[in-house]
Amino acid sequence: MGTTEANSKPVLIDLDEDTCWQLLETVSVGRLAWVDAQGPVVVPVNLAVSAGSVVVRTAAYSTIAREVDDSRVAVEVDLFDDQARTGWSVLVRGVARVLLEPAPADAPTAWPTGTKSATVRIRPTTVTGRRLARPV
Amino acid sequence: MGTTEANSKPVLIDLDEDTCWQLLETVSVGRLAWVDAQGPVVVPVNLAVSAGSVVVRTAAYSTIAREVDDSRVAVEVDLFDDQARTGWSVLVRGVARVLLEPAPADAPTAWPTGTKSATVRIRPTTVTGRRLARPV
Repeated sequence: MGTTEANSKPVLIDLDEDTCWQLLETVSVGRLAWVDAQGPVVVPVNLAVSAGSVVVRTAAYSTIAREVDDSRVAVEVDLFDDQARTGWSVLVRGVARVLLEPAPADAPTAWPTGTKSATVRIRPTTVTGRRLARPV
Repeated sequence: MGTTEANSKPVLIDLDEDTCWQLLETVSVGRLAWVDAQGPVVVPVNLAVSAGSVVVRTAAYSTIAREVDDSRVAVEVDLFDDQARTGWSVLVRGVARVLLEPAPADAPTAWPTGTKSATVRIRPTTVTGRRLARPV
């Protein structure tokens, strides 16, 4: 294990909040996490960013709509390159509100078929991120 | 909104547990979720599957090593195709154990530089997954 090999391994670098928001804008799928009686649950969702919040659309009778209103949640997005072993991730932690309503203008397009009549808005308390990159 | 358009949208299909384990074997990055005083936390990790458990390596003094021992956690892996709007996800829920030890034979390779001297083993209580696919 020479110095050269050690130096070439990717390092984790904290991202500032502006960069985190820019990266959040680049993805259409993220993961919504909440907590039920058995611990944390993590499910992929289509999301959008609007006025400093993260917006998700779901079915009114879905587990998400039932369980996350007024609860602490997290939204994670990331992108990794398996070949280069580099990438980035962003974590939004905050409180979710569920509104049963027609799709607002700032809602994301949901990929799965089926009626999505609930909007989940996550108001962030913290937004953090890290980049995994090779030192230059 | 004609029938044709509605039929062409992807549908969510539950995966059986064998398929979930096969998909877990195909990835080297997943997301580990746990719960702290502010709610759920979700962080990308390198992982491996071994003897019915999910194995993660981390630094002995990392937040993960400090916070997840003997706790309920979740591991989520997924792969989505932004163009086709299809993909799959698998969620492993269970209890984590943290062992401070040299890397065991079944540990994953961690991409970031730095000493990883803790092994996190997640023993699943449930393994579920869904595929988002266009109806044939």
